[in-house]
Amino acid sequence: MDASPLLPQCPPGLPRAAYLSPDWYAQEQRAIFSREWICVGRAADLPAATQRPVTIGGAPVLLLRTPGGQAAAFHNTCRHRGAELCAAESAVGQLIRCPYHAWAYRADTGALVGTGPARPTEDFDRSAHGLHPVAVTEWAGFLFVNLSSDPGPLLPDMGLQALDNWPMHSLVTGHRITRNLDCNWKVFWENYNECLHCPGIHPSLCDMVPIYRQGIMSPAEAADGAPGTPPLKPGAVTWTPDGQPCGPVFNTLTDQQKGAGYTFVTLYPTMYVVAHADHVRAVRLDPTGPETTRLTAEWYFPAETLAQPGFDAAHVASFALTVMDEDGWAAEMNQRGIRSPSFARGTLMPEEFDIRRFHRWVLSRMETTA
Amino acid sequence: MDASPLLPQCPPGLPRAAYLSPDWYAQEQRAIFSREWICVGRAADLPAATQRPVTIGGAPVLLLRTPGGQAAAFHNTCRHRGAELCAAESAVGQLIRCPYHAWAYRADTGALVGTGPARPTEDFDRSAHGLHPVAVTEWAGFLFVNLSSDPGPLLPDMGLQALDNWPMHSLVTGHRITRNLDCNWKVFWENYNECLHCPGIHPSLCDMVPIYRQGIMSPAEAADGAPGTPPLKPGAVTWTPDGQPCGPVFNTLTDQQKGAGYTFVTLYPTMYVVAHADHVRAVRLDPTGPETTRLTAEWYFPAETLAQPGFDAAHVASFALTVMDEDGWAAEMNQRGIRSPSFARGTLMPEEFDIRRFHRWVLSRMETTA
Amino acid sequence: MDASPLLPQCPPGLPRAAYLSPDWYAQEQRAIFSREWICVGRAADLPAATQRPVTIGGAPVLLLRTPGGQAAAFHNTCRHRGAELCAAESAVGQLIRCPYHAWAYRADTGALVGTGPARPTEDFDRSAHGLHPVAVTEWAGFLFVNLSSDPGPLLPDMGLQALDNWPMHSLVTGHRITRNLDCNWKVFWENYNECLHCPGIHPSLCDMVPIYRQGIMSPAEAADGAPGTPPLKPGAVTWTPDGQPCGPVFNTLTDQQKGAGYTFVTLYPTMYVVAHADHVRAVRLDPTGPETTRLTAEWYFPAETLAQPGFDAAHVASFALTVMDEDGWAAEMNQRGIRSPSFARGTLMPEEFDIRRFHRWVLSRMETTA
Repeated sequence: MDASPLLPQCPPGLPRAAYLSPDWYAQEQRAIFSREWICVGRAADLPAATQRPVTIGGAPVLLLRTPGGQAAAFHNTCRHRGAELCAAESAVGQLIRCPYHAWAYRADTGALVGTGPARPTEDFDRSAHGLHPVAVTEWAGFLFVNLSSDPGPLLPDMGLQALDNWPMHSLVTGHRITRNLDCNWKVFWENYNECLHCPGIHPSLCDMVPIYRQGIMSPAEAADGAPGTPPLKPGAVTWTPDGQPCGPVFNTLTDQQKGAGYTFVTLYPTMYVVAHADHVRAVRLDPTGPETTRLTAEWYFPAETLAQPGFDAAHVASFALTVMDEDGWAAEMNQRGIRSPSFARGTLMPEEFDIRRFHRWVLSRMETTA
Repeated sequence: MDASPLLPQCPPGLPRAAYLSPDWYAQEQRAIFSREWICVGRAADLPAATQRPVTIGGAPVLLLRTPGGQAAAFHNTCRHRGAELCAAESAVGQLIRCPYHAWAYRADTGALVGTGPARPTEDFDRSAHGLHPVAVTEWAGFLFVNLSSDPGPLLPDMGLQALDNWPMHSLVTGHRITRNLDCNWKVFWENYNECLHCPGIHPSLCDMVPIYRQGIMSPAEAADGAPGTPPLKPGAVTWTPDGQPCGPVFNTLTDQQKGAGYTFVTLYPTMYVVAHADHVRAVRLDPTGPETTRLTAEWYFPAETLAQPGFDAAHVASFALTVMDEDGWAAEMNQRGIRSPSFARGTLMPEEFDIRRFHRWVLSRMETTA
Repeated sequence: MDASPLLPQCPPGLPRAAYLSPDWYAQEQRAIFSREWICVGRAADLPAATQRPVTIGGAPVLLLRTPGGQAAAFHNTCRHRGAELCAAESAVGQLIRCPYHAWAYRADTGALVGTGPARPTEDFDRSAHGLHPVAVTEWAGFLFVNLSSDPGPLLPDMGLQALDNWPMHSLVTGHRITRNLDCNWKVFWENYNECLHCPGIHPSLCDMVPIYRQGIMSPAEAADGAPGTPPLKPGAVTWTPDGQPCGPVFNTLTDQQKGAGYTFVTLYPTMYVVAHADHVRAVRLDPTGPETTRLTAEWYFPAETLAQPGFDAAHVASFALTVMDEDGWAAEMNQRGIRSPSFARGTLMPEEFDIRRFHRWVLSRMETTA
């Protein structure tokens, strides 16, 4: 039987500056987004011989896959006079060639192999003028990059193994949406980490997961403290508009996984994954300023599901998208109120134990490099 | 006989930073707009059981009238995690209910009376989690709020009694306009406080008040120093396009008040009222940044005037609106020139005695809490 | 024989802050744009009895020509309370009259001669309230202003005499374009100062000046080190789409000047002139922020050229405009890459000797007044 996850007290939240201050934000960019592994999308969505500009922790980064299939990333700036190497998704060969003065770098290592028409003098050290590398790794078909020169292991203690039974590498992206929210990135995560708002904000989600109507996330939080995961409404097996699978159910799952209706994996600071019996969704979150956040959500399906005649991925996605847009509305409302000079910090309720955990995760990193 | 109000010397004006600097502006928000009484509109325009968001000194404030008719104001931020309580004018009952997690507060006192689905632990002190109150008072049918926790009396020394003979509480708002000006709020007040610009800027106003053609505001300023108020042109009795009353003249006025043509009351930092024999106008001024100001003008009439068949409040308002738009044009021109790095501070002319008084009013408050 | 201009080593470029930092930019505005002579257009394009607002080093300036034909410039701010004196190109007589309170200043000297309706007291010193003057001078039909109270000589050491044989004063402006570029002003000058980018960026220019295909600017840079200026392609004599003169060739030029195809004069910080055998072009550059620059290009012709039936100045201009837009594209690409936090500073190639000279010119001025 699960022990109650409820907080034994009502602790304070983060201070107001955490949600508004450009200084706090800059420190987060350095201490968190420039040091943690950041998801940049699906490995399968970056074809061989393709380069693409992305922004990580405020830094422009060139993400690429070589013609030979190797993923790599570099700071998107030429070592000659700083020109941007890649302005838009485009083809790349064995060499990255700067469009300004034709300096050429190996696409796999970033080593400088040519300076175009320029004829450097003897003192010029080519080996000191390779591209600045950015670490790249992969998990469950997702690509992650890390700006740190000494990156730690990929997302330890985040329960990556929870998706081991899903055929993550073979899934195909079927739908994608983006949203620009007027809120600090942490406000979005706080909203994600509690269900007290569910009764008032998410009518269709509460219909799908009846326990959410009580404002809690699991039976363990209820007064009677029953163990286990909260069931979907009778007859529903997945998060589609009618609760029915949109294609074949994954036969690699345990009965418990099939019956759970959904399995969350939370990958701070930038992603969560929700795995269902028939499809998987991932939501990525990119801070674009102290009070703005860009959200990207993708839905992944088996190829045979997508191949079904008349299959409509947008219809499948509409259930979760409604919930996400409700959450976006709530996060923007929260951000507006936080701007009040009278707001010093919030007070967490016992049910907000996951927010508490998130706050500690943030603060521990801020202190590390402060 | 009036003593001449003219300044005996030509003193310097405020330094350039007063009109441009974000730091000076922030200090004004703290020292002036967060401590003085700020007009937020007509009491009658806030019906019972209605809440409305307003911004005072940069702070989001919830202004409301209870179903029982009591006006109240609170900082517009929930004590749980800071959500905005009121996003738009809407209905409110005995309770203010946060749209995020359903925390409930008494609309009259702001006391916390419920936490929605959250079940706080014993350590949680409800009495310490009421809404932060904002002081509210009323004068002449206008609502004022004050962010200070220890507000002084309403606008002392501002000549509030000048309107005692007007039936202010029974007047009805007949017309409203807003303007966003690209100027510091003090530039607008400075322009308000002198008539040297009248000959060049206000042709129709100088036609209505002939003495303004001399660039002065009252006979006392003229060389011959005659006492009294400056008369309107022959035959005119009020500020309407043709100078004629737009409805019944107020029978509570003295003959002098009727004959004066207009009576000004200046309520720093945010309002002035111009009372005529047949209607009243108020102009409110909200700083929105160091170099931007929002203006709201309203025209008030007796109900029977508004009820006249074919009555056109916009036509009545057009006379003063022309003058206000000329003033707005002048204020923006002044602001542009102040941006010159060669501008250190201005030099006031003897006729600019009211600007001098205004500068002293501003500086005395800036020093108080500096 | 020319000595090789190539740099003997590969020196570092300017630090990243030079291209991004508001502080660095503000210092440049003070140390460079407020002290150097800044081109504000053609003398002939400012008719007598005309005033015009311009912005120099971030300062609003009133540029005028009196009815008598004298060019003058003043800070565009009234000495009374700072109003902008001139908002748009307009007529001016012997007096500059402030549109706010009718203060009047002599257009030639800026001396205060009237205060409108204001009657200053005895302590008011008119001679201390004249307009703040801005130095004006002229060269080759161009007007220059200088904000310094103690301006040095006009652009010493910049080779002004190179255009002595061109009839600069009689040329007429035939075409003008403006561009707003998202780059620091120095990035544009750096691009101007090297031709390593020519092979990749400027196909039509490399066709016109074949040596540019090698990424060098003059034969002296080539391995064989031949002296002289790089010739145009066979048959071409000027920078028009077909290389043919668009009208009569200037008969005051030497054969060498006629044969050169083009003659550059570089006038830091804001202009370069390219003189051809049949017409002249000037490009002016106004920094509008740390990462934005406004470009104005004008084409000048003899009156008889413009008078040719069917003459199309825009067609003549199209050759150079294509090159300029390619340069603008490159400069914006360079600026984007410089934003990478991993960019510390660039490394100059031997062929970038003119960039090195430009960097030294910038740094020597930054140090002068730092």
